[in-house]
Amino acid sequence: MTVIIITTFEKSPDRGAGLARDTRVRWALEEVGQPYEVRPVSFRAMKELAHLALHPFGQIPTYEEGNLTLFETGAIVFHIAEQHAGLLPRDANAQARAITWMFAALNTIEPPILELVNAKLLESDKPWNKERMPLLRNRVRDRLKQLSVYLGESNWLDGAFSAGDLMMVSVLLRLKSSGLLNEYPNLAAYVARGEARPAYKRAFDAQLALYMASQQSVSPDSTP
Amino acid sequence: MTVIIITTFEKSPDRGAGLARDTRVRWALEEVGQPYEVRPVSFRAMKELAHLALHPFGQIPTYEEGNLTLFETGAIVFHIAEQHAGLLPRDANAQARAITWMFAALNTIEPPILELVNAKLLESDKPWNKERMPLLRNRVRDRLKQLSVYLGESNWLDGAFSAGDLMMVSVLLRLKSSGLLNEYPNLAAYVARGEARPAYKRAFDAQLALYMASQQSVSPDSTP
Repeated sequence: MTVIIITTFEKSPDRGAGLARDTRVRWALEEVGQPYEVRPVSFRAMKELAHLALHPFGQIPTYEEGNLTLFETGAIVFHIAEQHAGLLPRDANAQARAITWMFAALNTIEPPILELVNAKLLESDKPWNKERMPLLRNRVRDRLKQLSVYLGESNWLDGAFSAGDLMMVSVLLRLKSSGLLNEYPNLAAYVARGEARPAYKRAFDAQLALYMASQQSVSPDSTP
Repeated sequence: MTVIIITTFEKSPDRGAGLARDTRVRWALEEVGQPYEVRPVSFRAMKELAHLALHPFGQIPTYEEGNLTLFETGAIVFHIAEQHAGLLPRDANAQARAITWMFAALNTIEPPILELVNAKLLESDKPWNKERMPLLRNRVRDRLKQLSVYLGESNWLDGAFSAGDLMMVSVLLRLKSSGLLNEYPNLAAYVARGEARPAYKRAFDAQLALYMASQQSVSPDSTP
């Protein structure tokens, strides 16, 4: 069997909170029962040519499987879902709808969330940030409200759990510290259902264990 | 043959510049030679229940084909590419890489471009906007630089033209008025190659014709 290798942060900047994008790929691999190996990459190495050859934008995760190399979490999760049973329905129309939710998570729900995250990360020292944050929170609310109405009392977005839910829950998890998720109880419950899946727990625990280990060891970059 | 119906803006806010997302779907349908019908939707009708049943986020385009309804441009273009020859390579690995570029266009390149567009559209009256714009332009440049290095002298992102190029060119077209594209001559040439494709021209002309017609007729919303 071909070995699957993914790259991750050597020391995740979220301190093992599970928000780095490798968690999405780990989760998908756990859902379909595929073993994988991890190659941690330092921030410095991420911008070097060897890694840029795998990922033109110098990020993690990447995915290697024999002579196939992929980057971009959505594409990697889709590839895993297409190759193995468990993340996409068999019916062609249901499958197209599950894929729709993957794209909706990444291109409709995540962008306003990223704007909010970026404002905290990159503009917290700017004089406008305090006045601007409520605007950004409202833009996120606009989308959450629509998603909440759509989801209603359903457990998952379209029938059984799919790669669309995996991606949507992963995107919504970024909002935990903002408090916004709790304004929509059915969305908070939806995210909690995702987190309660054994495959998610295994993925989360694995990335946390790597972070904890990185705190106890000397970085490879600093050894001779 | 099942009729394909897409929804579009009744009066595109970009005045026929081709930046509304239905152009991406039209382009894909033209590349694979599939005829389609158009149902224009007014801004008011987009927020009403009949349209929300097709698109939970109240946007255009949607895609109807028999008993299948899709929204989210990435998902629609992917569905078209999967159903018809012309937008995805046959080799499995090459196909996975083309899909990677679709996701990269929508989740890595488009978000900073949308931040720039949103700053112009939604925050032009704010006191911070003038000082903030250079930050946003630099965030776009960070990505364009990496994309430019990756593309190099190639005509398309990975071998022959694919749905990945269709999506990337469509995303980059949003930058035309910003002047940023011209800072990377190989990216400007790449976008021009996309625009020169007969299928793109047919898609562009069709959406422009609809906009021009909307200027000459009374809106259905205002008739009794």
